[in-house]
Amino acid sequence: MRLSRYFLPILREVPKEADIVSHRLMLRAGMIRQESAGIYAWLPLGLKVLNKICNIIREEQNRTGAVELLMPTIQSADLWRESGRYDDYGKEMLRIKDRHERDMLFGPTNEEMITEIVRGSVKSYKSLPLNLYHIQWKFRDEVRPRFGVYRSREFLMKDAYSFDLDAEGARHSYNKMFVAYLRTFARMGLKAIPMVADTGPIGGNLSHEFIILASTGESEVFCHGDYLEKAPPPADVNFDDAAAMQALVDDWTTLYAATEEKHDTAAFAAIPAERQMAARGIEVGHIFYFGTKYSEPFNAKVLGPDGAEKLLHMGSYGIGPSRLVAAMIEASHDEQGIIWPDAVAPFQVGILNLKVGDSAVDAACADLYAKLTMAGVEVLYDDTDERAGSKFATADLIGLPWQILVGPKSLADGKVELKRRVDGSRELVTPAEAFERLKG
Amino acid sequence: MRLSRYFLPILREVPKEADIVSHRLMLRAGMIRQESAGIYAWLPLGLKVLNKICNIIREEQNRTGAVELLMPTIQSADLWRESGRYDDYGKEMLRIKDRHERDMLFGPTNEEMITEIVRGSVKSYKSLPLNLYHIQWKFRDEVRPRFGVYRSREFLMKDAYSFDLDAEGARHSYNKMFVAYLRTFARMGLKAIPMVADTGPIGGNLSHEFIILASTGESEVFCHGDYLEKAPPPADVNFDDAAAMQALVDDWTTLYAATEEKHDTAAFAAIPAERQMAARGIEVGHIFYFGTKYSEPFNAKVLGPDGAEKLLHMGSYGIGPSRLVAAMIEASHDEQGIIWPDAVAPFQVGILNLKVGDSAVDAACADLYAKLTMAGVEVLYDDTDERAGSKFATADLIGLPWQILVGPKSLADGKVELKRRVDGSRELVTPAEAFERLKG
Repeated sequence: MRLSRYFLPILREVPKEADIVSHRLMLRAGMIRQESAGIYAWLPLGLKVLNKICNIIREEQNRTGAVELLMPTIQSADLWRESGRYDDYGKEMLRIKDRHERDMLFGPTNEEMITEIVRGSVKSYKSLPLNLYHIQWKFRDEVRPRFGVYRSREFLMKDAYSFDLDAEGARHSYNKMFVAYLRTFARMGLKAIPMVADTGPIGGNLSHEFIILASTGESEVFCHGDYLEKAPPPADVNFDDAAAMQALVDDWTTLYAATEEKHDTAAFAAIPAERQMAARGIEVGHIFYFGTKYSEPFNAKVLGPDGAEKLLHMGSYGIGPSRLVAAMIEASHDEQGIIWPDAVAPFQVGILNLKVGDSAVDAACADLYAKLTMAGVEVLYDDTDERAGSKFATADLIGLPWQILVGPKSLADGKVELKRRVDGSRELVTPAEAFERLKG
Repeated sequence: MRLSRYFLPILREVPKEADIVSHRLMLRAGMIRQESAGIYAWLPLGLKVLNKICNIIREEQNRTGAVELLMPTIQSADLWRESGRYDDYGKEMLRIKDRHERDMLFGPTNEEMITEIVRGSVKSYKSLPLNLYHIQWKFRDEVRPRFGVYRSREFLMKDAYSFDLDAEGARHSYNKMFVAYLRTFARMGLKAIPMVADTGPIGGNLSHEFIILASTGESEVFCHGDYLEKAPPPADVNFDDAAAMQALVDDWTTLYAATEEKHDTAAFAAIPAERQMAARGIEVGHIFYFGTKYSEPFNAKVLGPDGAEKLLHMGSYGIGPSRLVAAMIEASHDEQGIIWPDAVAPFQVGILNLKVGDSAVDAACADLYAKLTMAGVEVLYDDTDERAGSKFATADLIGLPWQILVGPKSLADGKVELKRRVDGSRELVTPAEAFERLKG
C-alpha cells in the first residue's frame, strides 16, 4: 500500500480524552475514531490488526473441530425470557422496541440463541460433540464507557459454545478450548496464563480466565514464574485425544496462578521466593463449563445411544478481539509508539522514501515495494512529501516491525538502512539484501 | 470437512413460511435459520458462501484503490439530525434509547458517519481522491419482512463512499466503481446489466442499478440482447486512467437497458426485434453520485490547490452480500436444489462415501479427501451413515459443483463416478484421474 493512497489520519497531539496508553496510541496512530461514547469506527490500520487477530482465533478454533457460523446482532427478548436472563441483565443490555413494539435487544452474548438453534436442529447423540462459534459485534451499555476499545460499548467477540451428551464429553470440549486458547495467544506473541475464575452471570462450576501481564493491567495477579517459560502446545496436538487434552490442562493448571479474588497467600508463599511473581494482568479470554444451565430451561435434549432423552451439557468460550488489540498495545509499546508482534502487525514492512523526487531514491523504493509485494509481504510504502523526521515518527508510532529507510546518501553507496522496530537497531545493507531478509 | 463433524441441518420438508425459491432452498440446505421476523442466523454453509461473496467484492474494491474500514452498527441520532435525515427516514429506521436516554439508531446506511469521519481527518486536496468502504451489518425495519435474506431486516451491506475535489474527479470515482461492479458480478458468474436509476432518498443526479436476470425477479426490465454476450473489463484495466474508465462506462451504457420505471418504449422498439429482451430482473448493486448533498450540511471541506476551501464531492456505492446470496440462487437452481457458480460454492467438491464401513471404499474416500484437501481444494466429505439416495439428494440440494461418488461396485473396477452438478453428467474415472481433474 502506498501511504499517499491510504487513509491514515495520524494525530500529532496526544488526545486529552484518552487516559490509558493503548487508547492514546490507537487514536494517534489513526487506528480508531470515536463515533459516540464507547462506540468506535475502525479505521483501515486498526481494521487490519483486528482482522489478523480474528484470523488467528479462527484458525485455532477450526483446528479443534469447532465450526463457524454467524448469529445476528439483534435478538428477540422472548429468547431471554426463556432463560430468565431478560430481567436479570439490567441496564447493560441495550433494549430496543421495533416498529411493531416488539421487545428486541442488541445481543451482549449468545447462550440463549445458540441453545435455541441447536435445540431446533440436533436430535441425536450422533451429531455430538458439537462446538459452534461466531465472531460478531456485541453491545453492552456500560454506564461510563472509557479506555477506548479496551472497554467499549460496541465490541467484537468470538464466542464458542460446546454441546455434549454428558459431563465427561463436556470436559473434553472444555479442555480442547483451553488448549486452543493457549495456542491462540501464543501465536499473537502473548504469554497468557490460565487462572481459575468465578463463573459470574454465565453460571456454571468450572471456569478459567486467560491473563496476560502488562504493567498497566486492570487487576493484580499472582503466579509461579515458570509460566513465562512454558511452551504452548504444538500445532499437531491431537484434539480428539481426551487423555492428551486433560494432561495438557493438568500441566497448565498445576503451578500456582490466581487473580486477586482467588488469591491464596499460603499457596503463593509455598512457591520458591525467586519464582513468586506478583504483577498486573489483563483478562483476554474466559472459558466456562456450565452443564445444563441453559439446556434445561430451553429443554434442549438429544436421544442418547440407549434411546433415552438427555439434556445437553454446554460450555461457552469467549475472546474479545477488539479489546485484545488494546490489550496487546498495553503489553507492547514504548515512548515512540506501538510495537506489534509480527503475527498481527498491520504491515510487516515499511519503506520510507526519505527524498521523494530524487529519481534514484524513488526508483529504489518502487523496486523494493514491487518485489516485496510480489513476494506476498505486506508493505506500507511512505511515498508522501512529509519530511524524514515525520516519516520516522509515523513508522514507529504505528509499530511497523521492519522499516527500510531509503535516502540519497546511503543509496549513493548502494545501501539502505534496515531498522528493527522492537529495539531500534539499524543496519546498512544493499537493497537486494534487504529484500532477501524480508521476503519471508 | 467431514460431514459427520460439520453442522449442516438439512430440512427434508419444504418449509411452509417460505414463498420464494431461494428462501426455501436456503432453509432446506441448512444455510440460514430465522431467529426473529426478518432476522437470520447464518449457519456454517451459508456463512461460507457469504464470505466468498464478500471476498470477491473486497478484492475488486481494493483493485480500484478503495480502502476498507469498519464503522460501528450503532450511530448517534445527532449525526442524522445534521443531515436532516433523522426525521425523514420514518419507521424503517430502528431507533434506540441507550441507558442515558440518548437517541441512537442501528445504521441503515453510512453517508452521515463517513462524511463526519472524513471531515474530521482530511484537510487538503492532496489526500484526494479517497474512497472508503466497509462491509457491515445494517438494519431496516421493514413493515413486512419476507423472502428470507432477500429482504431481511438485519442485512449485510458493502457500502463505499468516494470523496473528490470537484465534479470531474467525482465522475472518475463513480466510473471506477461502475467498472469494479461489472467485474465483481462477472466473477460471481452473474450477468449484471447496468441501468439508469432514480436516486431516491440518497439524492443526487447520477445513478445506476446493476440488474441480473432471473425468471423470479422482482421487476420487469428491458434491454438489448447484446448485453448477455459482453465480456467484463479485464483485471489489469487501469483504474487511474480517467479516459479509459469513461470509455468503458460509455461502452456499457450505449445499448438500451432500462427498468420498468425508466422504460422508453420507442427506444426499445428501435432495437432489432430479435435482440429485444424483456425479462424479470433483480437489483444486486446500486451506485450514486450526489455531489455536495452531504458535505454541505456537514461543512466537509478541503483546501484546494489554490488555497481556497471547497466542499467535497461525494458518491456512494452499495452491494448487499446477504441479499446477493439469495439473488444468486434465484438465478441458478433446479428441481434438485442450488447450482453454485464455482467462485462462490461453499465447497468445490463433495466426496460421497456410498458404503461407509466397506474398507476399500473408506480408504479410497479418505485418500481422495486427504489429497484434495492438501491441494487446497475445499471438500465436503460425506462420511455419514445415511443411505446413498439421501447423500445424492444432499449434495445436489446444497449445490456442490463437483461430486465424487465412491461405491463398492465401481471401485472393484478401480473407478469412481465424477458428477457435474450443473448438468448432472457422470463419468467413470480412476480416483487418480478424479484428483487430477479437480486439484485446481
